Amino acid sequence: MTPAVLLFDVFGTLVDWRSGVIAALRAFGEAHDVRADWAAFADDWRAAYAPSMDRVRRGDIPWMNLDALHRASLAVLLERYAVGPLDDAQCTALSHAWHTLPAWPEVAGGLGRLRERFIVASLSNGNIALQVDLCRAADLRFDMLFSAESFGHYKPDPQTYLGACALLAVPAARTMLVAAHRDDLAAAKALGLQTAFIARPLEYGRPAAFDAALAEGFDYFADGLESLARQLGA
Amino acid sequence: MTPAVLLFDVFGTLVDWRSGVIAALRAFGEAHDVRADWAAFADDWRAAYAPSMDRVRRGDIPWMNLDALHRASLAVLLERYAVGPLDDAQCTALSHAWHTLPAWPEVAGGLGRLRERFIVASLSNGNIALQVDLCRAADLRFDMLFSAESFGHYKPDPQTYLGACALLAVPAARTMLVAAHRDDLAAAKALGLQTAFIARPLEYGRPAAFDAALAEGFDYFADGLESLARQLGA
Repeated sequence: MTPAVLLFDVFGTLVDWRSGVIAALRAFGEAHDVRADWAAFADDWRAAYAPSMDRVRRGDIPWMNLDALHRASLAVLLERYAVGPLDDAQCTALSHAWHTLPAWPEVAGGLGRLRERFIVASLSNGNIALQVDLCRAADLRFDMLFSAESFGHYKPDPQTYLGACALLAVPAARTMLVAAHRDDLAAAKALGLQTAFIARPLEYGRPAAFDAALAEGFDYFADGLESLARQLGA
Repeated sequence: MTPAVLLFDVFGTLVDWRSGVIAALRAFGEAHDVRADWAAFADDWRAAYAPSMDRVRRGDIPWMNLDALHRASLAVLLERYAVGPLDDAQCTALSHAWHTLPAWPEVAGGLGRLRERFIVASLSNGNIALQVDLCRAADLRFDMLFSAESFGHYKPDPQTYLGACALLAVPAARTMLVAAHRDDLAAAKALGLQTAFIARPLEYGRPAAFDAALAEGFDYFADGLESLARQLGA
Protein backbone atom coordinates (compact mmCIF):
# COMPACT_ATOMS: atom_id res chain seq x y z
CA MET A 1 0.00 0.00 0.00
CA THR A 2 1.29 3.46 -0.84
CA PRO A 3 2.06 5.35 2.36
CA ALA A 4 0.38 8.72 2.94
CA VAL A 5 2.84 9.85 5.60
CA LEU A 6 6.58 9.45 6.08
CA LEU A 7 7.91 9.86 9.63
CA PHE A 8 11.63 10.53 9.94
CA ASP A 9 14.04 9.74 12.69
CA VAL A 10 16.44 12.68 12.94
CA PHE A 11 19.75 12.02 14.76
CA GLY A 12 21.91 9.84 12.56
CA THR A 13 19.22 9.40 9.93
CA LEU A 14 19.05 13.02 8.75
CA VAL A 15 21.84 14.83 10.59
CA ASP A 16 25.47 13.97 11.21
CA TRP A 17 25.43 14.57 14.97
CA ARG A 18 29.00 13.35 15.43
CA SER A 19 30.72 15.82 13.09
CA GLY A 20 28.50 18.60 14.36
CA VAL A 21 29.11 17.98 18.04
CA ILE A 22 32.86 17.50 17.55
CA ALA A 23 33.03 20.81 15.67
CA ALA A 24 31.12 22.63 18.39
CA LEU A 25 33.32 21.15 21.13
CA ARG A 26 36.50 22.08 19.22
CA ALA A 27 35.26 25.63 18.75
CA PHE A 28 34.49 25.81 22.46
CA GLY A 29 37.96 24.45 23.28
CA GLU A 30 39.66 27.00 21.09
CA ALA A 31 37.61 29.88 22.46
CA HIS A 32 38.41 28.90 26.05
CA ASP A 33 41.90 27.51 25.46
CA VAL A 34 40.91 24.03 26.66
CA ARG A 35 42.27 20.83 25.14
CA ALA A 36 40.62 17.41 25.17
CA ASP A 37 39.93 14.47 22.87
CA TRP A 38 36.76 16.06 21.51
CA ALA A 39 35.89 13.13 19.25
CA ALA A 40 35.92 10.77 22.24
CA PHE A 41 33.97 13.37 24.24
CA ALA A 42 31.29 13.50 21.52
CA ASP A 43 31.07 9.70 21.35
CA ASP A 44 30.74 9.45 25.13
CA TRP A 45 28.09 12.14 25.09
CA ARG A 46 26.05 10.21 22.55
CA ALA A 47 26.66 6.97 24.44
CA ALA A 48 25.14 8.54 27.57
CA TYR A 49 21.92 9.23 25.67
CA ALA A 50 20.33 5.76 25.57
CA PRO A 51 20.86 4.91 29.26
CA SER A 52 19.66 8.33 30.42
CA MET A 53 16.57 8.04 28.23
CA ASP A 54 15.95 4.51 29.49
CA ARG A 55 15.92 5.81 33.07
CA VAL A 56 13.07 8.12 32.03
CA ARG A 57 11.32 5.31 30.14
CA ARG A 58 11.48 3.04 33.20
CA GLY A 59 10.22 5.83 35.45
CA ASP A 60 13.45 5.93 37.53
CA ILE A 61 13.57 9.69 36.99
CA PRO A 62 10.74 12.07 36.09
CA TRP A 63 10.19 13.27 32.54
CA MET A 64 13.11 15.30 31.21
CA ASN A 65 13.45 16.43 27.63
CA LEU A 66 16.54 15.71 25.55
CA ASP A 67 18.09 19.13 26.24
CA ALA A 68 17.90 18.38 29.96
CA LEU A 69 19.36 14.87 29.46
CA HIS A 70 22.22 16.27 27.35
CA ARG A 71 22.88 18.89 29.97
CA ALA A 72 22.94 16.32 32.79
CA SER A 73 25.31 14.00 30.96
CA LEU A 74 27.53 16.96 30.05
CA ALA A 75 28.17 17.60 33.75
CA VAL A 76 29.54 14.05 34.12
CA LEU A 77 31.69 14.32 30.99
CA LEU A 78 33.20 17.65 31.99
CA GLU A 79 34.55 15.96 35.11
CA ARG A 80 35.68 12.87 33.22
CA TYR A 81 37.61 14.98 30.70
CA ALA A 82 38.79 17.46 33.34
CA VAL A 83 37.21 20.38 31.48
CA GLY A 84 35.93 23.31 33.47
CA PRO A 85 34.34 24.14 35.82
CA LEU A 86 31.92 25.90 33.49
CA ASP A 87 29.25 28.31 34.57
CA ASP A 88 25.57 27.81 33.87
CA ALA A 89 25.48 29.83 30.66
CA GLN A 90 28.51 27.97 29.28
CA CYS A 91 26.90 24.58 30.00
CA THR A 92 23.72 25.65 28.24
CA ALA A 93 25.65 26.99 25.28
CA LEU A 94 27.67 23.79 25.00
CA SER A 95 24.55 21.59 25.25
CA HIS A 96 23.13 23.58 22.38
CA ALA A 97 25.77 22.01 20.17
CA TRP A 98 22.98 19.48 19.55
CA HIS A 99 20.76 22.23 18.09
CA THR A 100 22.79 22.95 14.97
CA LEU A 101 24.11 19.86 13.26
CA PRO A 102 24.89 19.40 9.58
CA ALA A 103 22.41 17.34 7.56
CA TRP A 104 23.83 14.54 5.42
CA PRO A 105 24.42 16.04 1.98
CA GLU A 106 21.34 14.71 0.16
CA VAL A 107 18.82 15.28 2.98
CA ALA A 108 17.42 18.76 2.30
CA GLY A 109 16.91 17.99 -1.39
CA GLY A 110 15.60 14.47 -0.86
CA LEU A 111 13.18 15.59 1.83
CA GLY A 112 11.85 18.33 -0.44
CA ARG A 113 11.31 15.80 -3.19
CA LEU A 114 9.51 13.38 -0.86
CA ARG A 115 7.37 16.22 0.49
CA GLU A 116 5.92 16.80 -2.97
CA ARG A 117 4.35 13.37 -2.84
CA PHE A 118 3.90 12.56 0.87
CA ILE A 119 3.17 14.29 4.15
CA VAL A 120 6.57 14.41 5.85
CA ALA A 121 7.02 14.74 9.61
CA SER A 122 9.84 14.18 12.02
CA LEU A 123 9.49 11.68 14.85
CA SER A 124 12.47 12.28 17.08
CA ASN A 125 13.48 11.98 20.69
CA GLY A 126 14.85 15.51 20.36
CA ASN A 127 12.69 18.15 22.04
CA ILE A 128 10.72 20.64 19.98
CA ALA A 129 12.99 23.65 20.55
CA LEU A 130 15.98 21.54 19.52
CA GLN A 131 14.25 20.25 16.38
CA VAL A 132 13.12 23.74 15.37
CA ASP A 133 16.70 24.97 15.61
CA LEU A 134 18.05 21.95 13.72
CA CYS A 135 15.55 22.30 10.88
CA ARG A 136 16.14 26.02 10.52
CA ALA A 137 19.91 25.55 10.50
CA ALA A 138 19.87 22.74 7.94
CA ASP A 139 16.91 24.14 5.95
CA LEU A 140 14.81 21.01 6.38
CA ARG A 141 11.17 21.53 5.55
CA PHE A 142 8.76 19.27 7.38
CA ASP A 143 4.99 19.49 7.47
CA MET A 144 5.10 18.78 11.20
CA LEU A 145 7.59 18.03 13.94
CA PHE A 146 6.77 15.28 16.40
CA SER A 147 8.86 14.84 19.49
CA ALA A 148 9.02 12.39 22.37
CA GLU A 149 8.17 15.54 24.32
CA SER A 150 4.78 15.73 22.58
CA PHE A 151 3.85 12.33 23.98
CA GLY A 152 5.71 12.16 27.29
CA HIS A 153 7.38 9.00 25.99
CA TYR A 154 10.67 8.29 24.27
CA LYS A 155 11.03 6.06 21.25
CA PRO A 156 10.82 3.11 21.01
CA ASP A 157 7.75 3.39 23.27
CA PRO A 158 4.62 2.70 21.15
CA GLN A 159 2.96 5.96 22.27
CA THR A 160 5.34 7.88 20.01
CA TYR A 161 4.66 6.08 16.72
CA LEU A 162 0.94 5.64 17.38
CA GLY A 163 0.65 9.19 18.71
CA ALA A 164 2.03 10.63 15.49
CA CYS A 165 -0.35 8.47 13.40
CA ALA A 166 -3.32 9.54 15.53
CA LEU A 167 -2.48 13.26 15.28
CA LEU A 168 -2.15 12.96 11.52
CA ALA A 169 -5.37 10.92 11.39
CA VAL A 170 -3.68 8.24 9.31
CA PRO A 171 -3.63 4.49 10.01
CA ALA A 172 -0.31 2.92 10.98
CA ALA A 173 -0.44 0.82 7.81
CA ARG A 174 -0.33 3.97 5.67
CA THR A 175 2.58 5.46 7.62
CA MET A 176 6.24 4.70 7.00
CA LEU A 177 9.05 5.20 9.48
CA VAL A 178 12.32 6.22 7.83
CA ALA A 179 15.30 5.57 10.08
CA ALA A 180 18.90 4.42 10.23
CA HIS A 181 18.48 2.24 13.32
CA ARG A 182 17.06 -1.24 13.58
CA ASP A 183 15.52 -0.91 17.05
CA ASP A 184 13.51 2.14 15.99
CA LEU A 185 12.30 0.44 12.82
CA ALA A 186 11.54 -2.84 14.58
CA ALA A 187 9.31 -1.05 17.11
CA ALA A 188 7.44 0.73 14.31
CA LYS A 189 7.07 -2.48 12.31
CA ALA A 190 5.62 -4.31 15.32
CA LEU A 191 2.88 -1.65 15.44
CA GLY A 192 2.01 -2.09 11.77
CA LEU A 193 3.92 0.84 10.27
CA GLN A 194 5.81 0.46 7.02
CA THR A 195 9.57 0.80 7.34
CA ALA A 196 12.50 2.15 5.36
CA PHE A 197 16.06 1.54 6.48
CA ILE A 198 18.53 4.28 5.54
CA ALA A 199 22.18 3.24 5.56
CA ARG A 200 24.40 5.78 7.30
CA PRO A 201 27.73 3.98 7.53
CA LEU A 202 29.46 7.18 8.68
CA GLU A 203 27.18 7.86 11.65
CA TYR A 204 29.78 6.69 14.17
CA GLY A 205 32.75 8.04 12.27
CA ARG A 206 34.18 4.66 11.32
CA PRO A 207 33.45 4.26 7.63
CA ALA A 208 32.46 0.64 7.09
CA ALA A 209 31.23 -1.45 4.22
CA PHE A 210 27.46 -1.59 4.38
CA ASP A 211 26.13 -4.68 6.07
CA ALA A 212 23.03 -5.72 4.11
CA ALA A 213 21.81 -7.76 7.09
CA LEU A 214 21.04 -4.48 8.86
CA ALA A 215 18.22 -3.75 6.44
CA GLU A 216 16.73 -7.22 6.66
CA GLY A 217 13.07 -7.42 7.54
CA PHE A 218 12.20 -3.87 6.51
CA ASP A 219 10.18 -2.77 3.49
CA TYR A 220 12.73 -0.48 1.87
CA PHE A 221 16.46 -0.05 1.99
CA ALA A 222 18.18 3.08 0.70
CA ASP A 223 21.54 4.81 0.98
CA GLY A 224 19.84 8.19 1.37
CA LEU A 225 16.62 10.11 0.80
CA GLU A 226 17.15 10.63 -2.93
CA SER A 227 17.35 6.89 -3.39
CA LEU A 228 14.27 6.39 -1.21
CA ALA A 229 12.39 9.01 -3.26
CA ARG A 230 13.26 7.15 -6.45
CA GLN A 231 12.06 3.85 -5.01
CA LEU A 232 8.80 5.41 -3.84
CA GLY A 233 8.21 7.03 -7.21
CA ALA A 234 8.52 10.57 -5.81
CA MET B 1 12.01 43.83 23.58
CA THR B 2 12.48 42.14 20.20
CA PRO B 3 10.45 38.94 20.08
CA ALA B 4 12.21 35.67 19.29
CA VAL B 5 9.05 33.82 18.34
CA LEU B 6 5.87 34.77 16.51
CA LEU B 7 2.80 32.60 17.13
CA PHE B 8 0.00 32.87 14.58
CA ASP B 9 -3.68 32.36 14.92
CA VAL B 10 -4.85 30.67 11.71
CA PHE B 11 -8.62 30.88 10.95
CA GLY B 12 -9.44 34.42 9.92
CA THR B 13 -5.93 35.69 10.61
CA LEU B 14 -4.13 33.72 7.88
CA VAL B 15 -6.85 31.97 5.92
CA ASP B 16 -10.17 33.15 4.52
CA TRP B 17 -12.27 30.34 5.98
CA ARG B 18 -15.55 31.87 4.76
CA SER B 19 -14.74 31.98 1.04
CA GLY B 20 -13.12 28.56 1.28
CA VAL B 21 -16.01 26.86 3.03
CA ILE B 22 -18.62 28.48 0.78
CA ALA B 23 -16.72 27.30 -2.29
CA ALA B 24 -16.49 23.74 -0.95
CA LEU B 25 -20.20 23.69 -0.07
CA ARG B 26 -21.13 25.02 -3.51
CA ALA B 27 -19.00 22.38 -5.20
CA PHE B 28 -20.66 19.73 -3.06
CA GLY B 29 -24.10 21.11 -3.95
CA GLU B 30 -23.36 21.04 -7.65
CA ALA B 31 -21.91 17.54 -7.53
CA HIS B 32 -24.98 16.22 -5.70
CA ASP B 33 -27.56 18.52 -7.24
CA VAL B 34 -28.47 20.07 -3.89
CA ARG B 35 -29.41 23.73 -3.46
CA ALA B 36 -29.09 25.79 -0.30
CA ASP B 37 -27.94 29.22 0.87
CA TRP B 38 -24.34 28.06 1.18
CA ALA B 39 -23.07 31.42 2.48
CA ALA B 40 -25.55 31.28 5.37
CA PHE B 41 -24.63 27.61 5.90
CA ALA B 42 -20.95 28.54 6.16
CA ASP B 43 -21.68 31.38 8.59
CA ASP B 44 -23.83 29.12 10.76
CA TRP B 45 -21.13 26.46 10.71
CA ARG B 46 -18.55 28.94 11.94
CA ALA B 47 -21.01 30.30 14.50
CA ALA B 48 -21.40 26.80 15.95
CA TYR B 49 -17.67 26.65 16.60
CA ALA B 50 -17.33 28.84 19.72
CA PRO B 51 -20.23 27.30 21.68
CA SER B 52 -19.14 23.74 20.84
CA MET B 53 -15.57 24.54 21.88
CA ASP B 54 -16.79 26.17 25.07
CA ARG B 55 -18.62 22.96 25.99
CA VAL B 56 -15.26 21.18 25.79
CA ARG B 57 -13.54 23.97 27.71
CA ARG B 58 -16.13 23.77 30.52
CA GLY B 59 -15.85 19.99 30.63
CA ASP B 60 -19.49 19.45 29.58
CA ILE B 61 -18.28 17.06 26.89
CA PRO B 62 -14.98 15.13 26.71
CA TRP B 63 -12.08 16.33 24.56
CA MET B 64 -12.92 16.45 20.87
CA ASN B 65 -10.68 17.94 18.24
CA LEU B 66 -11.89 20.56 15.79
CA ASP B 67 -12.57 18.03 13.03
CA ALA B 68 -14.90 16.21 15.40
CA LEU B 69 -16.60 19.46 16.45
CA HIS B 70 -17.06 20.49 12.82
CA ARG B 71 -18.48 17.10 12.04
CA ALA B 72 -20.94 17.24 14.95
CA SER B 73 -22.19 20.71 14.06
CA LEU B 74 -22.48 19.67 10.40
CA ALA B 75 -25.08 17.05 11.39
CA VAL B 76 -27.23 19.79 12.94
CA LEU B 77 -26.84 22.09 9.95
CA LEU B 78 -27.72 19.41 7.41
CA GLU B 79 -31.07 19.05 9.14
CA ARG B 80 -31.56 22.81 9.47
CA TYR B 81 -30.89 23.33 5.76
CA ALA B 82 -32.74 20.16 4.75
CA VAL B 83 -29.67 18.77 3.00
CA GLY B 84 -29.14 15.04 2.89
CA PRO B 85 -29.22 12.56 4.47
CA LEU B 86 -25.50 12.08 3.76
CA ASP B 87 -23.55 8.92 4.43
CA ASP B 88 -20.52 8.78 6.65
CA ALA B 89 -17.96 9.30 3.89
CA GLN B 90 -19.85 12.31 2.54
CA CYS B 91 -19.98 13.92 6.01
CA THR B 92 -16.25 13.42 6.45
CA ALA B 93 -15.53 14.79 2.99
CA LEU B 94 -17.69 17.85 3.63
CA SER B 95 -16.10 18.50 7.04
CA HIS B 96 -12.76 18.46 5.29
CA ALA B 97 -13.78 21.71 3.60
CA TRP B 98 -11.98 23.23 6.60
CA HIS B 99 -8.72 21.53 5.56
CA THR B 100 -8.12 23.49 2.36
CA LEU B 101 -8.87 27.18 2.65
CA PRO B 102 -7.30 30.03 0.70
CA ALA B 103 -4.77 32.17 2.55
CA TRP B 104 -5.23 35.92 2.41
CA PRO B 105 -3.16 37.12 -0.55
CA GLU B 106 -0.11 38.45 1.32
CA VAL B 107 0.19 35.63 3.84
CA ALA B 108 2.55 33.11 2.20
CA GLY B 109 5.01 35.87 1.24
CA GLY B 110 4.73 37.79 4.51
CA LEU B 111 5.16 34.65 6.57
CA GLY B 112 8.27 33.72 4.59
CA ARG B 113 9.70 37.17 5.20
CA LEU B 114 8.97 37.02 8.95
CA ARG B 115 10.48 33.52 9.11
CA GLU B 116 13.84 34.89 7.99
CA ARG B 117 14.04 36.92 11.17
CA PHE B 118 11.88 35.06 13.72
CA ILE B 119 10.86 31.55 14.66
CA VAL B 120 7.31 31.27 13.31
CA ALA B 121 4.75 28.80 14.62
CA SER B 122 1.01 28.42 14.39
CA LEU B 123 -1.11 28.40 17.52
CA SER B 124 -4.55 27.34 16.39
CA ASN B 125 -7.59 25.54 17.68
CA GLY B 126 -7.48 23.53 14.47
CA ASN B 127 -6.22 19.99 14.95
CA ILE B 128 -2.84 18.92 13.60
CA ALA B 129 -4.09 16.94 10.60
CA LEU B 130 -6.24 19.92 9.60
CA GLN B 131 -3.35 22.37 9.96
CA VAL B 132 -0.98 20.16 7.99
CA ASP B 133 -3.46 20.02 5.12
CA LEU B 134 -4.09 23.80 5.29
CA CYS B 135 -0.41 24.67 5.25
CA ARG B 136 0.35 22.32 2.39
CA ALA B 137 -2.57 23.64 0.34
CA ALA B 138 -1.69 27.32 0.91
CA ASP B 139 2.09 26.76 0.88
CA LEU B 140 2.58 28.24 4.36
CA ARG B 141 5.94 27.44 5.87
CA PHE B 142 6.02 27.32 9.65
CA ASP B 143 8.83 26.12 11.87
CA MET B 144 6.26 24.33 14.03
CA LEU B 145 2.52 23.81 14.28
CA PHE B 146 0.90 24.07 17.69
CA SER B 147 -2.67 23.01 18.16
CA ALA B 148 -5.20 23.04 20.97
CA GLU B 149 -4.94 19.29 20.45
CA SER B 150 -1.30 19.36 21.59
CA PHE B 151 -2.36 20.74 24.96
CA GLY B 152 -5.83 19.27 25.49
CA HIS B 153 -7.09 22.84 25.82
CA TYR B 154 -8.66 25.28 23.43
CA LYS B 155 -7.66 28.92 23.16
CA PRO B 156 -8.13 31.19 25.02
CA ASP B 157 -7.16 28.77 27.83
CA PRO B 158 -3.72 29.78 29.16
CA GLN B 159 -2.32 26.26 28.68
CA THR B 160 -2.19 26.87 24.93
CA TYR B 161 -0.13 30.09 24.90
CA LEU B 162 2.12 29.02 27.77
CA GLY B 163 2.44 25.51 26.36
CA ALA B 164 3.78 26.83 23.08
CA CYS B 165 6.26 29.10 24.89
CA ALA B 166 7.44 26.20 27.06
CA LEU B 167 7.95 23.86 24.12
CA LEU B 168 9.94 26.52 22.28
CA ALA B 169 11.89 27.27 25.48
CA VAL B 170 11.21 30.98 25.11
CA PRO B 171 9.75 33.29 27.78
CA ALA B 172 6.26 34.72 27.19
CA ALA B 173 7.76 38.22 27.07
CA ARG B 174 9.83 37.26 24.00
CA THR B 175 6.85 35.71 22.22
CA MET B 176 4.30 37.61 20.14
CA LEU B 177 0.82 36.42 19.28
CA VAL B 178 -0.33 37.56 15.84
CA ALA B 179 -4.11 37.40 15.49
CA ALA B 180 -7.18 39.09 14.07
CA HIS B 181 -9.33 38.63 17.18
CA ARG B 182 -9.35 40.66 20.37
CA ASP B 183 -10.25 37.82 22.76
CA ASP B 184 -7.31 35.73 21.57
CA LEU B 185 -4.90 38.67 21.87
CA ALA B 186 -6.26 39.77 25.23
CA ALA B 187 -5.70 36.28 26.68
CA ALA B 188 -2.12 36.25 25.38
CA LYS B 189 -1.47 39.76 26.68
CA ALA B 190 -2.71 38.84 30.15
CA LEU B 191 -0.05 36.11 30.23
CA GLY B 192 2.75 38.50 29.27
CA LEU B 193 3.02 37.79 25.55
CA GLN B 194 3.50 40.60 23.08
CA THR B 195 0.59 41.12 20.69
CA ALA B 196 -0.01 42.14 17.10
CA PHE B 197 -3.52 42.81 15.83
CA ILE B 198 -4.06 42.02 12.15
CA ALA B 199 -7.06 43.73 10.57
CA ARG B 200 -9.13 41.33 8.43
CA PRO B 201 -12.21 43.39 7.61
CA LEU B 202 -13.36 40.76 5.10
CA GLU B 203 -13.31 37.82 7.50
CA TYR B 204 -17.10 37.76 7.85
CA GLY B 205 -17.78 38.74 4.26
CA ARG B 206 -19.17 42.18 5.04
CA PRO B 207 -16.46 44.61 3.97
CA ALA B 208 -16.32 47.35 6.59
CA ALA B 209 -14.17 50.36 7.26
CA PHE B 210 -11.51 49.37 9.76
CA ASP B 211 -12.38 50.24 13.33
CA ALA B 212 -9.16 51.43 14.96
CA ALA B 213 -10.60 50.73 18.41
CA LEU B 214 -10.26 47.02 17.68
CA ALA B 215 -6.49 47.27 17.79
CA GLU B 216 -6.41 49.30 20.99
CA GLY B 217 -4.28 47.93 23.79
CA PHE B 218 -2.06 45.75 21.60
CA ASP B 219 1.57 46.33 20.71
CA TYR B 220 1.28 46.31 16.93
CA PHE B 221 -1.46 46.90 14.45
CA ALA B 222 -1.13 45.86 10.80
CA ASP B 223 -3.35 45.26 7.79
CA GLY B 224 -1.44 42.11 6.88
CA LEU B 225 1.80 40.21 7.38
CA GLU B 226 3.84 42.30 4.96
CA SER B 227 3.01 45.38 6.97
CA LEU B 228 3.82 43.59 10.22
CA ALA B 229 7.16 42.47 8.74
CA ARG B 230 8.01 46.07 7.86
CA GLN B 231 7.14 47.27 11.35
CA LEU B 232 9.25 44.53 12.94
CA GLY B 233 12.19 45.32 10.67
CA ALA B 234 12.02 41.93 8.95
